[in-house]
Amino acid sequence: MATNGSNGYDLPFGIRLIEDSKISAEKRAELYLRPKIDLATAKSRAEPIIAEVRQDGDAALARLAKRFDKAELSQDDLVIDVASAPWPKVEPKVAKSLDAAYENVRRFHAAQKKPTLCVETMPGVECRRIAVPIEAVGLYVPGGTAVLPSTAYMLAAPAKLAGCKEIVLATPPRADGSICPEVIYAAKRAGATKILKAGGAQAIAAMAFGTKSCPKVHKITGPGNQYVTAAKMMLQADDEAAVSIDMPAGPSEQLCIFDVTSDPSFVVADLLSQAEHGPDSQVVGVFVSPSGETQSYLSRLREEFEQQTSKLSRRDITKQALSKSFVIVVNSLDAAMSFSNGYGPEHLVVQTADPEAYLEKVVNAGSVFMGAFAPESCGDYASGTNHCLPTSGYARQFGGVSTDTYLKYVTVQKLTPAGLKRVGPHVEVIADVEELEAHRNAVTIRLAKIGRELSWLDKLAALCRFC
Amino acid sequence: MATNGSNGYDLPFGIRLIEDSKISAEKRAELYLRPKIDLATAKSRAEPIIAEVRQDGDAALARLAKRFDKAELSQDDLVIDVASAPWPKVEPKVAKSLDAAYENVRRFHAAQKKPTLCVETMPGVECRRIAVPIEAVGLYVPGGTAVLPSTAYMLAAPAKLAGCKEIVLATPPRADGSICPEVIYAAKRAGATKILKAGGAQAIAAMAFGTKSCPKVHKITGPGNQYVTAAKMMLQADDEAAVSIDMPAGPSEQLCIFDVTSDPSFVVADLLSQAEHGPDSQVVGVFVSPSGETQSYLSRLREEFEQQTSKLSRRDITKQALSKSFVIVVNSLDAAMSFSNGYGPEHLVVQTADPEAYLEKVVNAGSVFMGAFAPESCGDYASGTNHCLPTSGYARQFGGVSTDTYLKYVTVQKLTPAGLKRVGPHVEVIADVEELEAHRNAVTIRLAKIGRELSWLDKLAALCRFC
Repeated sequence: MATNGSNGYDLPFGIRLIEDSKISAEKRAELYLRPKIDLATAKSRAEPIIAEVRQDGDAALARLAKRFDKAELSQDDLVIDVASAPWPKVEPKVAKSLDAAYENVRRFHAAQKKPTLCVETMPGVECRRIAVPIEAVGLYVPGGTAVLPSTAYMLAAPAKLAGCKEIVLATPPRADGSICPEVIYAAKRAGATKILKAGGAQAIAAMAFGTKSCPKVHKITGPGNQYVTAAKMMLQADDEAAVSIDMPAGPSEQLCIFDVTSDPSFVVADLLSQAEHGPDSQVVGVFVSPSGETQSYLSRLREEFEQQTSKLSRRDITKQALSKSFVIVVNSLDAAMSFSNGYGPEHLVVQTADPEAYLEKVVNAGSVFMGAFAPESCGDYASGTNHCLPTSGYARQFGGVSTDTYLKYVTVQKLTPAGLKRVGPHVEVIADVEELEAHRNAVTIRLAKIGRELSWLDKLAALCRFC
Repeated sequence: MATNGSNGYDLPFGIRLIEDSKISAEKRAELYLRPKIDLATAKSRAEPIIAEVRQDGDAALARLAKRFDKAELSQDDLVIDVASAPWPKVEPKVAKSLDAAYENVRRFHAAQKKPTLCVETMPGVECRRIAVPIEAVGLYVPGGTAVLPSTAYMLAAPAKLAGCKEIVLATPPRADGSICPEVIYAAKRAGATKILKAGGAQAIAAMAFGTKSCPKVHKITGPGNQYVTAAKMMLQADDEAAVSIDMPAGPSEQLCIFDVTSDPSFVVADLLSQAEHGPDSQVVGVFVSPSGETQSYLSRLREEFEQQTSKLSRRDITKQALSKSFVIVVNSLDAAMSFSNGYGPEHLVVQTADPEAYLEKVVNAGSVFMGAFAPESCGDYASGTNHCLPTSGYARQFGGVSTDTYLKYVTVQKLTPAGLKRVGPHVEVIADVEELEAHRNAVTIRLAKIGRELSWLDKLAALCRFC
């Protein structure tokens, strides 16, 4: 075995095999890094497009649809009003499955809604927190060659549940100027209000600034290519756009933890379902082997890789992703979770016999798939969890899209005169420390009118409540 | 009265008086805008400082402390370990008030913690959402000439409640290299783990990248001057820093709604408590006058402005802020809330007789202060709500700092074989639509092993659970 911990052992398609016990901390930290993305170039290309849309609005969108999507669109055909649009023709079997998937997503995200919080921090000092929907939001659903109805309901369902009034869903038009019926179906089912026929940086700019036909939104969510990501990040920093975003997005990734009790065909199927996304997808296997005996299991894994990959129509893309992937052998649950938390995967698949023991130690991950019967693709489409998740290690500080993504929390305070008598003197002291006299005076002037002493009735009422 | 809706009526210190019914929609939209901040210049100044800290770490911090804070600090004196630091000497009265304020903040933010959510979206398909603390966070507490212990506990208390392991609080040192005792006291009380003696862009860079003495953090929160804001926004877009921020920050602002039943001395005291923050603070009065008769009340307001302002030690700063401020007269509750929601104030004070009726219509606001006895300064210090709030209209999409600010939500799914039999076929259909064969195969390969038909026992169990 080579000293860098990687050996020549024959996993196919260039998948590296690494022994955790033989690598340095520095080497391990390197494995946590994703391939570098050249966002600077994407930003420099997105910049003039954003400027064009900001300047020319709908006219720019029509021009850019022609340039990038080969679609001839008139300026009054850029937006579909979803409510008044007829239900598109979709195969009944597909409609049924989209309905079932949407219903699971709706159930899980509906349960995330939080009632108003009300806390009396002191007798007479009431603090509340109210969830208020963001009025207008923009959702980006990638398109082009792919047809992605799942992203439409993943983004729109929580926005609708949150109560957003305007839910604009942008997706690139096909060359004939239409939007694929499955995406319209999913958008209508999940409650989007408008579909903007635009892709790339131009779609993000249109939603951030608004055009004649596209409403201005306050927050933009959804995955996309590097131009979409670049535009989201640039507009987030633009105080005239005054728009926020869900999170930075990078290529999709999966980390799968398995041991000798895991079915190798399931392990490989899950890793391949990630690898087929694109040549820049990341796939990491973590093989927990306390005994250190790995060869017989790895040879079964190798066979599965070869057999399953050969049958895939997207096998060339898949092999490219695999050639940048690796399997790391660790000797314990703790070592596995230490590696996983260091990497911070978007998708964490745990196919060991005791997934709950692993779950307890999860710190950095987007979504976790537990046990043999929870393949990642269930969460991608239909289990109910959201598939818009943090990538590139951003699971350290971000969660996926949720109902909260489309809400903000407004706090409220209401004080009785007795409440002000209790908390006011502390405000006066701290205002003195901070040398903010008018802050102090706002309390002092009130206490001068109502007096500083609590009545015996106030004291009694407080006693009754707090005992 | 002038045709632009502004008249020469004599509110003092250049406060403009505007009649809502006499202005155009464009004019109203202009009133919603804040004075433009030159963030570009701040960014160009912050950039070399960020590069210097990234390159030279602690050595750069020591140099910059000398340059900006006139403080001589050795490289091993940049960080205070809060747990092992002794309690600083603070006046007993001050300690008591800081304790009381902290306790209210702790109570309100503790109530924000959410238990694990668990939803069975279909029989055998279990989805969970788990709150996981962000491991390491960085908090910025402005300093320099001001002493701001309140920001220390406002930022640190929710981080501690969230369960963050490393809570680094950065604040600029005084010229003698020390940190003021009240800030240390508040940081220790609220559970910060380290105090970094650094201010400005250098503090943000040190926390984003980490130095020998300052841990690298994953998220940075807190207010600050334009250089702090510029550094936060630049590092948020830097994929090597891989750090997120709470929200963009601008000058503080208040919108106060009042009517003839409001005590003019309270109205003016609240507006002044905002105006004293700085010359760039924003103060807006919204006078609800259904009758249109305003003169007698306005003359009382004028007297209060003159009397109260003359007594303030920060009256020069206050007058500068007032000269950019305005009072708008509206004829109804709806008009008042329409204006307030259009403006999206950081602080919304409602001093009318029926504040709950106004609260129902709040869409865009950071924190609301209800009635005659809830001055803004109570929320600034001690009622329990957080004082780190969205400014510059960002209340349209952001809430203030909360316990959630320091958490992320990891989703989990666990399926039984019966659960996979139920949801799997839908996954297969949608994967076909999206032409992602390996996604489909991850389900198909499992169903091939366990069969596709639900047993009568599975059907019965589902019936029992769902009926």
